[in-house]
Amino acid sequence: MSVPTDTVTFKAEHIEMAHGAGGKASRRLVEDLIVPLFDNAPLRTLGDAATVQANGTGITFTTDSFVVHPLQFPGGSIGELAVNGTLNDLSVGGAQPVALSAALIVEAGLSRATLQAEVEAMAQAADAAGVPIVTGDTKVVEHGKADGMYVNTTGIGLPFDALRLGADHVQPGDQILLSGPVGDHGITILLARGDLALSADLETDSRCIAPLIEALVEAVGPSIRWLRDPTRGGVASALNELARDVPCAAVVYEDDLPVRPPVRGACEILGLDPLYIANEGQFVAVVAPDAVDDALDALHSVPGGDGARCVGEIRETPARRFLTQNPYGSTRVVDLLTGDPLPRIC
Amino acid sequence: MSVPTDTVTFKAEHIEMAHGAGGKASRRLVEDLIVPLFDNAPLRTLGDAATVQANGTGITFTTDSFVVHPLQFPGGSIGELAVNGTLNDLSVGGAQPVALSAALIVEAGLSRATLQAEVEAMAQAADAAGVPIVTGDTKVVEHGKADGMYVNTTGIGLPFDALRLGADHVQPGDQILLSGPVGDHGITILLARGDLALSADLETDSRCIAPLIEALVEAVGPSIRWLRDPTRGGVASALNELARDVPCAAVVYEDDLPVRPPVRGACEILGLDPLYIANEGQFVAVVAPDAVDDALDALHSVPGGDGARCVGEIRETPARRFLTQNPYGSTRVVDLLTGDPLPRIC
Repeated sequence: MSVPTDTVTFKAEHIEMAHGAGGKASRRLVEDLIVPLFDNAPLRTLGDAATVQANGTGITFTTDSFVVHPLQFPGGSIGELAVNGTLNDLSVGGAQPVALSAALIVEAGLSRATLQAEVEAMAQAADAAGVPIVTGDTKVVEHGKADGMYVNTTGIGLPFDALRLGADHVQPGDQILLSGPVGDHGITILLARGDLALSADLETDSRCIAPLIEALVEAVGPSIRWLRDPTRGGVASALNELARDVPCAAVVYEDDLPVRPPVRGACEILGLDPLYIANEGQFVAVVAPDAVDDALDALHSVPGGDGARCVGEIRETPARRFLTQNPYGSTRVVDLLTGDPLPRIC
Repeated sequence: MSVPTDTVTFKAEHIEMAHGAGGKASRRLVEDLIVPLFDNAPLRTLGDAATVQANGTGITFTTDSFVVHPLQFPGGSIGELAVNGTLNDLSVGGAQPVALSAALIVEAGLSRATLQAEVEAMAQAADAAGVPIVTGDTKVVEHGKADGMYVNTTGIGLPFDALRLGADHVQPGDQILLSGPVGDHGITILLARGDLALSADLETDSRCIAPLIEALVEAVGPSIRWLRDPTRGGVASALNELARDVPCAAVVYEDDLPVRPPVRGACEILGLDPLYIANEGQFVAVVAPDAVDDALDALHSVPGGDGARCVGEIRETPARRFLTQNPYGSTRVVDLLTGDPLPRIC
């Protein structure tokens, strides 16, 4: 048996909520327990998706289970989130989506109306993206389990020929693009839970980013070095992952980071940093410096791409750090959080 | 928007355990609510897997979420079941497995030891089958949800060239082969729950059937008409599904159905019919009559294939029925159950 059980270094005695929240604890669970046991080359890249060869054709493959609570929230719901989230993982994995699977775990007692609304939301999101849900599974668990429903979606796609993504292509001088304002999804979910006496005119940013990625690839494909959707753990976690994998620094200019007023307000009241808040319809792209103008022109020409802008750059030092820089030029290191202020946001 | 919401005919006001148990209620949920909304050709076949075209290559795609309770049971556990179950769905979908994804929903408070044991079980099952788990996801939900853990596995594979499976190829005179004894998995789970003062020397039959299917395909590929793994709902549900799709009858000879003594004993005590009990390492194949001997020779030559035998045949009448026939020649119609005596067996 070749399963290398002696390489597991995960030490926690029990799993805690933080292990699912997208920060350091999540990374430990994945890197210290799961990856050593499932050891193989595509998995070790720890990207949002893996590409395997099937009969000479590269197939990009990605999976996500959605446990968002509540099931429905302003601007979205678990069904559309599950479809768009997996489509987006294919997109930032450098692939054009081909098909999806859908597996539902439904709690006994869930109303037909709620289930039907979520299946409709999945169907509409898939239809809008032009990607069929071709296979599925339904399980039912006892009342009191599963918070209504959990949804797994898995996607397959075809890699874009023009792309050669990877942290090893990233170099000093490369520019960091962001598709739009950050934190809308996480703060929307937080407010929708109703535990706080706060409300705001805010919706999730959940959407399919495939049209934006396609426009970007068409315009500057070979100049795109790295793509990621900053979901759990936000932009800070995404850029910490990048910084860990390259001998460079990722720097974001604080004043250029787009944050809507209600998100900024809620973060100030709650002591949160918008950089750590989850997004479900944004992406971060690292592109070669000479491709920035064409990249932004292409994104601005696509519906929903008008908020794209350059928010930072790759520098030589301090290596393997993600920093923000304020307008006076001083920087601060923004580390991974251990957990996340907002569990179960997707 | 092309989602045909007016075609939903599902009438239950709430979801019940029976909707997940593999019988008539499950079929209604899938056929009257989910399939109309996700409407597309591959899904409408309602097979264990769907095949899509990607860049001219057929890719077979299947998903399953596993919610088995308890997590561990004689001869197996949720981890190996999740890997082998999805590999088997690819096999009976007529494909050679290429890669798997794994998505875990873990309950906060689960011990590391249990999680590690299940990830190891997944890794070992994948390794034994020679199929890598290349991408994954981990979510954590609050203590009290998820019964320890739920596991989704999704698989992609390459269709066997020699196979042309489909109920429309099945015709009177075709023979029904079964790979081995029925009911081991369902009865093992039932006894492992400990609610009954019964015990038996019995293990799950969970295993990867890919080597058996490969041998069968190599020996008599073009003569195989239909393949199915009789999991939830057992052989009776699998053959009811076949009978519904062909203008013929599927007949199984009662005396030829292999049932181990502890399964038969438990079924007699509990008033269950082994035909409805779930299996996790068996398959039913319908083959052309002149291929039976070669098919059985091929199966008997593979480790684990010695229990394969011919258990029935396809007849002209009564159309669209599954029957059993006793040694005296009299037959009885075996319909789908509404629910299942054993929910959450996979």
